[in-house]
Amino acid sequence: MRRILLTNDDGITRPGLWALYDVVKDLGEVYVVAPESARSATGMSITLHKPLRLKRLLIHGSTAYACSGTPSDCVIVAVNKVLSGKPPDLIVSGINEGNNVSLQAVYGSGTVAAAVRGALIGVPSAAFSLASRENEPLSFAWLKEATGRAAERARPFIEWLLNNGMPKGVDYFNVNFPPEVNSHTPVKVTKAGKIRYTEMVNERQDPQGRLYYWLHGKLVPEEMFEPDTDVYALFVEKSISVSPMRLNTSVEDLSSLKHIADFFRSGR
Amino acid sequence: MRRILLTNDDGITRPGLWALYDVVKDLGEVYVVAPESARSATGMSITLHKPLRLKRLLIHGSTAYACSGTPSDCVIVAVNKVLSGKPPDLIVSGINEGNNVSLQAVYGSGTVAAAVRGALIGVPSAAFSLASRENEPLSFAWLKEATGRAAERARPFIEWLLNNGMPKGVDYFNVNFPPEVNSHTPVKVTKAGKIRYTEMVNERQDPQGRLYYWLHGKLVPEEMFEPDTDVYALFVEKSISVSPMRLNTSVEDLSSLKHIADFFRSGR
Repeated sequence: MRRILLTNDDGITRPGLWALYDVVKDLGEVYVVAPESARSATGMSITLHKPLRLKRLLIHGSTAYACSGTPSDCVIVAVNKVLSGKPPDLIVSGINEGNNVSLQAVYGSGTVAAAVRGALIGVPSAAFSLASRENEPLSFAWLKEATGRAAERARPFIEWLLNNGMPKGVDYFNVNFPPEVNSHTPVKVTKAGKIRYTEMVNERQDPQGRLYYWLHGKLVPEEMFEPDTDVYALFVEKSISVSPMRLNTSVEDLSSLKHIADFFRSGR
Repeated sequence: MRRILLTNDDGITRPGLWALYDVVKDLGEVYVVAPESARSATGMSITLHKPLRLKRLLIHGSTAYACSGTPSDCVIVAVNKVLSGKPPDLIVSGINEGNNVSLQAVYGSGTVAAAVRGALIGVPSAAFSLASRENEPLSFAWLKEATGRAAERARPFIEWLLNNGMPKGVDYFNVNFPPEVNSHTPVKVTKAGKIRYTEMVNERQDPQGRLYYWLHGKLVPEEMFEPDTDVYALFVEKSISVSPMRLNTSVEDLSSLKHIADFFRSGR
């Protein structure tokens, strides 16, 4: 029986997690270990300075473990404790509420981080995210319905991953669905764009007159998105974007860079 | 006058930050924006759900800004507010208390994350870390002295970076110093190893009899480190490791992967 670890970064009660659960539950033994509440934008953050708690819950008739930490903590605790040290056959993360396209998202997203954690221990992994509708607040009912549509499209891909493992040279997948995804939505195999948001800082004054700051982002104009990237596929082509990702970020050919060592010799 | 942004993840009062400050202060205008206290292992985490505070301090006779957020928050707030929206010529992060070798560290370290944030906005960036002495507790006096030795070696490299910008194909540098670094320590240009620690979970019982968990790591045995990697250079060769890093984690050649799109077509 194949073992599937399911996690997310929005929290264990969120509809995107259970939409994935519904479509993978008959593909193997599914272990749900997810943050007890939202851990968005936590990236690869792990919890070393305080202990973690794990709560065993019954959600939708299934055993699930709510973890007090980040998605990375969830993967580490799941593999070492819930799965008794034997890595699962597949790690599935999501479906995230909001897109995770571009390197900016890949590096900062807790949902993607769970897949990167899987890749670090050599487990086939995939992260799934659903872009939000423009100018529409997120409603639970809509999320439930839309992540259901997305999960239907994810299912045969997950089944293929379980049966075949990762393709050579791919360490994990980053998959993004447009909000209107349905059974006819085309699929593009993409690279990650560089950024999707220009980072902004909003300055305000508190009632005591002291300044405080909100981070936020302004979507990069569509005409700056390069074709064949995830941002282009999702926002311009309204397609499902599938990005095969590598773990390794080292420069491969160091031959022209060996001389850099010389610059560490002080001339002072 | 060139502008240098200096940050870290151990906190604004730590000696590693001020060791770097001392060697870069005459290379340009130095802006210190760092977390108000330790933010280790926060990775690329950013703060979106609560506001940030920025405190203007005078430390060692210099203006410095203590930020309530993560190293990534520091870079974003520094560029947008302290530097008035004009990116610096260089971002320097560290010197971290403890090594940041292997992809495991590259993805999870707040120190490296500051350099990745710089790379995302196209600013030349470098992260510096000092490995701890084995079996010795960190003392402030030792850290001050040892990061001073490391900073002396970093200085000419930083000066070279400022004068020449990033080499083609390199987005940021990840530099690690051995604890005994001195003016004779050799320098190796390396790739990142995959992992340095096997992740472990320690299970305990609280006074109420409820379980809690500590994440920790067991150093991978030296014989498993591959030559030419940062872990090998630092731990086996006792050298300074300089890893030229790329931002992009996409699989470059998608030609053999286009067929993956077909697996999203449900046969159910």
